[in-house]
Order: sequence, then C-alpha cells, then structure tokens
Amino acid sequence: MPHWTALVEEKRQRQLNSIPQEWLVTPPPDSILDVTDFPETTGLLNAEEIEITNTSVDVLLEKLASAEWTAVDVTTAFSKRAIVAHQLVNCLTEIFVDSALARAAELDDHLKKTGKVVGPLHGLPISLKDQLCIKGLETTMGYVSWIGQYADKNAVLVDVLIECGAVPFVRTNIPQTLMFPETFNNVFGRTTNPYNRSLTSGGSSGGEGALVALRGSPLGVGSDIGGSVRIPAAFCGLYGLRPSYGRVPYCGARNSLEGQDSVLSVFGPMTNSISGVKIFMKATLLQFGRSGTKTSTISLDHGSGKDLCFAIMWDDGVVVPHPPIRRSLEITKAALQKAGHKVVDWKPIKHKLLGDATRDIWNAGSAEDYMITTSVTGEPIIATMELDDVDPAVASFRPQKAGITAYQLWQVQKLRQNVRKEYLDHWEATASETGTGRPVDAIICPAAPFAAPPHGKNRYANYTTVWNALDYPAAIFPVTTVDSILDGKEPRRGFYDDLDKHIHEMYDPEKFKNAPVCLQLVGRTLEEEAVIKMTEVVDAALAAAK
Amino acid sequence: MPHWTALVEEKRQRQLNSIPQEWLVTPPPDSILDVTDFPETTGLLNAEEIEITNTSVDVLLEKLASAEWTAVDVTTAFSKRAIVAHQLVNCLTEIFVDSALARAAELDDHLKKTGKVVGPLHGLPISLKDQLCIKGLETTMGYVSWIGQYADKNAVLVDVLIECGAVPFVRTNIPQTLMFPETFNNVFGRTTNPYNRSLTSGGSSGGEGALVALRGSPLGVGSDIGGSVRIPAAFCGLYGLRPSYGRVPYCGARNSLEGQDSVLSVFGPMTNSISGVKIFMKATLLQFGRSGTKTSTISLDHGSGKDLCFAIMWDDGVVVPHPPIRRSLEITKAALQKAGHKVVDWKPIKHKLLGDATRDIWNAGSAEDYMITTSVTGEPIIATMELDDVDPAVASFRPQKAGITAYQLWQVQKLRQNVRKEYLDHWEATASETGTGRPVDAIICPAAPFAAPPHGKNRYANYTTVWNALDYPAAIFPVTTVDSILDGKEPRRGFYDDLDKHIHEMYDPEKFKNAPVCLQLVGRTLEEEAVIKMTEVVDAALAAAK
Repeated sequence: MPHWTALVEEKRQRQLNSIPQEWLVTPPPDSILDVTDFPETTGLLNAEEIEITNTSVDVLLEKLASAEWTAVDVTTAFSKRAIVAHQLVNCLTEIFVDSALARAAELDDHLKKTGKVVGPLHGLPISLKDQLCIKGLETTMGYVSWIGQYADKNAVLVDVLIECGAVPFVRTNIPQTLMFPETFNNVFGRTTNPYNRSLTSGGSSGGEGALVALRGSPLGVGSDIGGSVRIPAAFCGLYGLRPSYGRVPYCGARNSLEGQDSVLSVFGPMTNSISGVKIFMKATLLQFGRSGTKTSTISLDHGSGKDLCFAIMWDDGVVVPHPPIRRSLEITKAALQKAGHKVVDWKPIKHKLLGDATRDIWNAGSAEDYMITTSVTGEPIIATMELDDVDPAVASFRPQKAGITAYQLWQVQKLRQNVRKEYLDHWEATASETGTGRPVDAIICPAAPFAAPPHGKNRYANYTTVWNALDYPAAIFPVTTVDSILDGKEPRRGFYDDLDKHIHEMYDPEKFKNAPVCLQLVGRTLEEEAVIKMTEVVDAALAAAK
Repeated sequence: MPHWTALVEEKRQRQLNSIPQEWLVTPPPDSILDVTDFPETTGLLNAEEIEITNTSVDVLLEKLASAEWTAVDVTTAFSKRAIVAHQLVNCLTEIFVDSALARAAELDDHLKKTGKVVGPLHGLPISLKDQLCIKGLETTMGYVSWIGQYADKNAVLVDVLIECGAVPFVRTNIPQTLMFPETFNNVFGRTTNPYNRSLTSGGSSGGEGALVALRGSPLGVGSDIGGSVRIPAAFCGLYGLRPSYGRVPYCGARNSLEGQDSVLSVFGPMTNSISGVKIFMKATLLQFGRSGTKTSTISLDHGSGKDLCFAIMWDDGVVVPHPPIRRSLEITKAALQKAGHKVVDWKPIKHKLLGDATRDIWNAGSAEDYMITTSVTGEPIIATMELDDVDPAVASFRPQKAGITAYQLWQVQKLRQNVRKEYLDHWEATASETGTGRPVDAIICPAAPFAAPPHGKNRYANYTTVWNALDYPAAIFPVTTVDSILDGKEPRRGFYDDLDKHIHEMYDPEKFKNAPVCLQLVGRTLEEEAVIKMTEVVDAALAAAK
C-alpha cells in the first residue's frame, strides 16, 4: 500500500479534475478574511445565476415548478457558485456536477412532457454531508483509509430526496471521525468561515455551513450527534434543525462510532430561511408532510401560536456566553415581548452532568473505533484542530484513554436516562409559572457560548450537546452579527471554573469580527413541527422588531 | 446482615400475612396437574363472584360504568380468585388487597356522586409484573438483595393506569434476573402452569400468565425483552401484545440490565380476549386512544381489513416446531382462507444470527449485573430452571463468561442494525407475491416450537426474540390445545442440528397433556394498531371456522 500522503495526493488530484476547469478562479489572498461578497464579483456567474443563487428555497421551488427557471439553469448556477465557494473556504469533498446536470435535464424533460413536478423538491440542488453515500461515489468521510471505497447504493435519505425531485450535486467537508465541532481532515484539509476565514465554520457539518452561507447551495443536509448541524449553522449565520431520533432516515449512511445505540446522530437541514427547513422536513417525513394536517398551526399543545411562553436560558451554569450572545438573547427577548409573548428565565439543571455522560458514552469505544479505522493506512489520528501544535490534553475533544466495558457503559447510559426523566419533570413543572396553563412552550438559548471562534478554539459544545442527550429537537436562527461597539469586552469578577475563565478571556471583538450570531430554539422530543412553527414565530418577531 | 435464607423466610412470612386468612383454601394435591377448574369449586367465591371473574374486560368495564357491578365487588371477586390461584400455582409476589379495596371504594363513590367514570379503565383490577413500582411497596423483582427496598413513587405506567381508573391489586412472579423464559426465584419460588402443573407457565411474566389463565386477574401487565409477555401468554392460552419500543411508558420501573439501550424491554398486556389487549393499549397510549381515529379501521396501508395477505412461517430454519404447533398453523391457515384472505409462506432470513446477536448484546454486561446485584446478600445466582441439578452449561440461559468491551458491544449492535435493514427490505420485497399491491400484511408464526414444556426445558426462545431484535410488534392468540390423538409423535429424518434434534425428542403428547397452543401475529415497527386489528381478524376467522 502506498504511503498515506500519496493516497491523499492522488485523491486531491481527482477532486481537482472533477471541477470544470473553466470555473477555476483566482481567489483573494488569505489576508482577505470576509469573502462573502466574492462569488458575485468573479464574473463567472451571470446576473440570472446570481439572482437564482440568492433566492430562498420556497421561491426557487415555485419558479422551478412553473418552469420560469429550469432545473438545469438552477443546478448550473449553484454548481458554479459552489465551486467558487470551495476555492474560498475549501468546503467540498465529492463534486459531481455532470451527473447532477444530467439529472436536472431529466427533470426538465419530465416537467415539459407531463406538466407535473416529480415531487416537492423538484429541481432543487441539494448538498450533502460527506456521509450520505451515493452509488458509484467514494464516501471517505475524511478518512484516508476509506479512499477508494465506492458505494454500491444510495443512502436511504438520498433515495428519498431524489424521489422528491431534488438534485444532489456536491458533498461537503467534515472533520476526521466527525467527532469535532470544527472541520479538518487529512484528505481534504480545513474548511474556513466565509464571514472571517480566520474563524472556524464549525463542525462537524462545517463544509455545509460554509457552502450554504456563500449560497453555493440552497439547502444542505448535515448530521448532528452533539451539535454538528447546529454549531456550523450558528457559526455561519444559517437556519438549521436537529430533529429527534428516528424521524429522518439514517440507514445506508456512513458514520463514526457505528453500533453506538444510545446518543444517536440524526440528519437535519441547513439553509438560508426557516421556510427551507420546513420544506425539507415536510418533503422527507411521512408524518409531517403527506397529510398536511400538522403543518397548518402549532399543535394543540402550544395553543394557537399566539401568547406563547418562551424561556430564555442566559447561561448553562457552566460557561457564561460572550457579550454578542448575551446581546442576541436580549434582542430576542425584547422582540418576543413586543409581539405579545411571555418570556421567562430557564433554569438549567445538570447540564454539565448531561454533557459529561454523553461524552463518556461516545468515548466508551471511540478510541478503538478511530484506531482501527485509521490503522489501514497509518494516517495520523487528528488530536486537535489548532493551527499550531499544542498539547492535545488541553486542546482536544479526542479521548485520551482506552475504552470501558459494556457494563460500565450501561451505567453511564442508565445515568443519562435518569436525568432525562428529571429534565422532563423539570420542564413539566414550569406550567405553574407560564400563565398559559401549559409548561414553557420552548427554550431559547445560545448555540454556543461564542460566535464562530478562531480555528482550534471551539472547545465547548455543551450548549448543543445537552439537547442531543435529552433527544430534544432544536432549531438555529440568526439574530445579529458581532459588533465591536455594542459587544465590547466586559470584565467579570467570578467564574464558574477555569474553563469558564479561559473562554471569557478568549473574547475580543476584533478577533470575532463580522461573525454571525445565531440562537437556538429547543422543543420537546418529537415536536419537530412545533419547533419549526415556533421558530417562524421568533423569526417574524425579530423581523418586526428591527 | 442475616443469611439470605433468613431474609427469604421473613419475606415469605410477610407475604403470607398479607393474605386475608379467611381466603386460605386446601389446595389439591400436587398430583392433580390441571387446576383450572379448582377456583370455582372451593366455595370461597359466590355465584356472582364467579360470574364477574369469568367476564371479559370489555363487558366488565361496561358493567362497572353502568354501576351494575361496583368496583368493590369486582375487586373483591378478583382478589379472592387471585389468592386461590396463588395457592395453586404460586403466581403472586406483593399482595395489597386492602389498599385496592379502598381505591375501589373511592371509585364507586366518585361514580355515585358525579355519574361519571374516572377514566377508560374505571374500576378494573389490574395485576402487575413485579417490576412496576408502587409507592410504599417493595419491588424485589425476585432478588433477595432487594428485599426491604420500598418504592418512594409509582412507576409512570402505574400512574397512567390509576389515572385511567384501574385498580392495581397484586403483583406477580418472575424469574430471578428476568432473563429466563420460565419463572423461579429465590424469594418466591416457582410458578407452575395451571393447565398442567408439571409444565412451566413460561417467563419472565410467568406469574401474570398463570394468574390471568386462572382468571385471578382480568388483565395483567407483563414486560417483554425477548418474549417475556408472549411466551407466558402462549403457554397459558392467553392474548398478549409486545408493543414497539417507546409506546408504553417504562420509566420508574425496576429492571435488569439497566442502561442497556439497544434491545429494549417493553410493557404489554396479557388478558383473556383481544378486546382486552385493545382496551389496554387505547387507554395507555396517547396516539392510539385519545383521538380514536386510528382505531376504527385497519390503517390505509393494510387496505380495508378485507383481502389481507398473511404469511405463515412454518418453522424458523433453526428448530422445527412440535406437531401441536404445526397443527395450529394449519387450522389458522384454513380459517383465514375460508374467510377470504390470502395466505402465503414466510421465508425467514437470519433468525439464528438475530437471536445470537441479541443474546450477545444482553450478555455484554449481564454477568456483572447479576453478580453485583446478588452479592449484597450472597443469594445464589440461578443458573438453570431445571427441577434437578443439571449441568448449567447445557441447561442455562445464563452467560457463562465475563462481559465484553463497549467497542465489541457496538460491533454486535451494528450487526443487528444491518440485519434490521435487510429484514425490512425482505419484507418490502413480498409485495410482488401478495396480489394485494402491498407487502405481506402480517406474519403468523409459532410463539415457541412447543406448547408449555416441563419445568427447566424451555431452552429456545428465538421464535419471540427475533421480533424484539427487529422491534416488530407481535400479538399472541390462542388456537387449540395439545391433543394426544391429533398430535401424535412424528418421526423426522433430518435435523437442522443437535438442538433441533433435542427439542424434537422432547415431544410426547402425554407430557404436554392439556397444554394450550397459541400463535403469534407479527407486524411492522410501530404498527400496534394494525397488529391488534389483524389479530381481531384472525380471531374472528378462527371462531367462524370452528
């Protein structure tokens, strides 16, 4: 077997060959941090292509269904912009524009002949995280050891999307092992944040986050086991959803920690509007979409959608959020109150314990998983996402020790189940303070204690991970961007602990310049429909308050 | 701490004291095997009490709601008969008739005052497997080491049942560890089969099976991780249901292998009619009962309930069923064809692999679980359910070795998930042979390769366990009883393997005399409503064909 670096070189050359050469551009120098304007200035996209790529999913689908825009036109536009985006922030893995355009031509043909769309996503280009197998393509998931492993069939979700009329056209970058909230691997390298390339795009669906933020894709599919949809959505200024276990099909996708049956990874959408989130879920979920009955209003359990009671979690009792996050919570609180909703404070319980238990569950066998997977080629296991070498013991999400026994694992899983029940009781008990007769309708909280941090510095993912541990659905929505005037450094007197202090000290408005600030709306298990509807409510309140 | 035997002696004395002494009877000698007629001949129950206890759940609820029978009358009747049953087959653990009668009086009072029932189970006595904690009572689960552990709150399901108006009145016997398909433990001893006391009542919900068969309870709640509702239901001639994961609340119950998050135990009903199964599920499940819409017909995916296509699995490719089981399948096939339904053969795939993987998952940490639990008092770990000492290596369901690592567990869990997908595809592929345009609507198969076998001989539970591994809901329904003329020994030429041969040689119609013969109807994940409805269809077809 060749040295692993030779395998990488060969794969990268093939990736380069998969790009239409006339779409190569001269990217700005690395010193240009904000590259969000660049795709529209290269001259590669014509005016209509710029218009298409700046259009939200709902309008795209209308124009595709009415044949105002053809699927080939739309796929071409997003493909071009995706290729430009890739040259700016290194967000793609597999690129298959040719087969996407062939598929788009078939869809156009079908619409012309029958007058009917193939399905609810007719002609919509969709980008996919590099786990979602497509027949005939490699799924390396950033592992050198998986180069050359070609899928013999599509993942189930890919089949569902194709059946709905979608056009998969690129796959997107992830961290090695998937178990990092940033995006870097030995095969494809690092994805950066288009709003400020010195910052991470988040992870593990960081390629999706960067691509969709640059409007190189109208809608991407990420996966989320501890925040992997929500962190990159939040760091890149997008809308995203982490659904409950079992609602979006996972079968046939590649994954890390396979066979881990406790805190599960789920697929969810990342896009530029809440309507895009809703359209994806309606199209892919039997219960949600096909009857339509659940989509018209917030479910009975949340009243009519008026006079909701939101609970804001200002911090999780472990790490206090940076000033921009605090400000975004204040903006949201004021907007909701102005719209006539009630807002109370959320009292978090056992968030540290939930996070620790979740990591213990993953790390029960993760070191063996990574070691066995990488040993095929001898590629290094990446221990930190830092730009420079640092002590992995302080900078790593990586388990430092061998696994535990199955019985020990069961004890942690039991602990987590017990805390789930405690949290349920805790939520139910809020009925006494909402004034609506119901418990709190949703929690609004940070997606992270910071906006997108510098590469290697995203060391606290518990603002998202706790909801995975509890299996609560959670949506991300944008609120503002870091503002050096409004978000100045604020001295603090006391700290929860060294981590809290460390993260406090990391803040500097200049360092986080231009970073988007998003928040998270959290509902209860299997309440995807209500979470989406309530995020629409919050989104509208924020727009009205502006 | 006293010696474990002293703890048992003290607990048994307390159990005896909890029985109203005027309800003690002189049971028939052990040589009388069939004791099903005994409860009506003791003179303890008057004519109305005999009528009450012979009434099915649906009619009981009607008469309770109309105040024709009071909850006190009904609870008294079943309590008496339960105590008689216990003296025949040793089926009870906790006995709390006094508090049940007090609760029944409250319900009568409520009905008298308001004219309204408390809920859909108003006044119905319900027996509970000895896992379902009730505030103030011990939940020993047959462990000496758990004697004296009093619950400080009800299990969630107990609260739901009480909210529905049910009257819990006794708890029922189980095997130590729950992980045996028979019923024997160091605290309460062995439960026997009322149709033939030389046979097992099955397990692990074997106390429920024996009690409900003797009509000492109109409806019992068992749990099922590998057949623990269905095996005793089948061995005792009852109806029972193993629901899919997550539909009936499990929280707050005690259990073995806690924290095992993969192949899960679920609670389900055991009763004397399919209507009893339906009433329990409607009352306890939000989705099922409260809208009512799903209960009126078989769901759209199964047509109108006419012209169904059933697939019969004659054997699982591992162990060939005994003649009475074969005959019951033939009876059912003929009845369904007569009723106008189509019947095809089911081709099982990978049943041995599924069973082995499931046991590997449970045994990943079970030896440690049992050892740590029993070590408190030093009670022996029960290695076999045989009456005489035999080599545990051949007679035991008990793991013989230490556990495995979490990573090794994940590999087995991954294997099981992959086979689930294969089985799904296999089922979907039957659409080409049903003639209905749908895949096979349900599988009908044995619940075990035999009717209730002699104590210690129930060594093959895979006819039920595979459906747990696949998370398919499955109902049990009675068909016939073992008949020495119709079910003669049949020579066989070839055998799958030694286990198949061993189980074949175990058969002798005299040994299985009077044993009920039941079958199993299997649906697809989360299709509880359709499984119940299709079992009604089969039940009606069997009745019509008689």
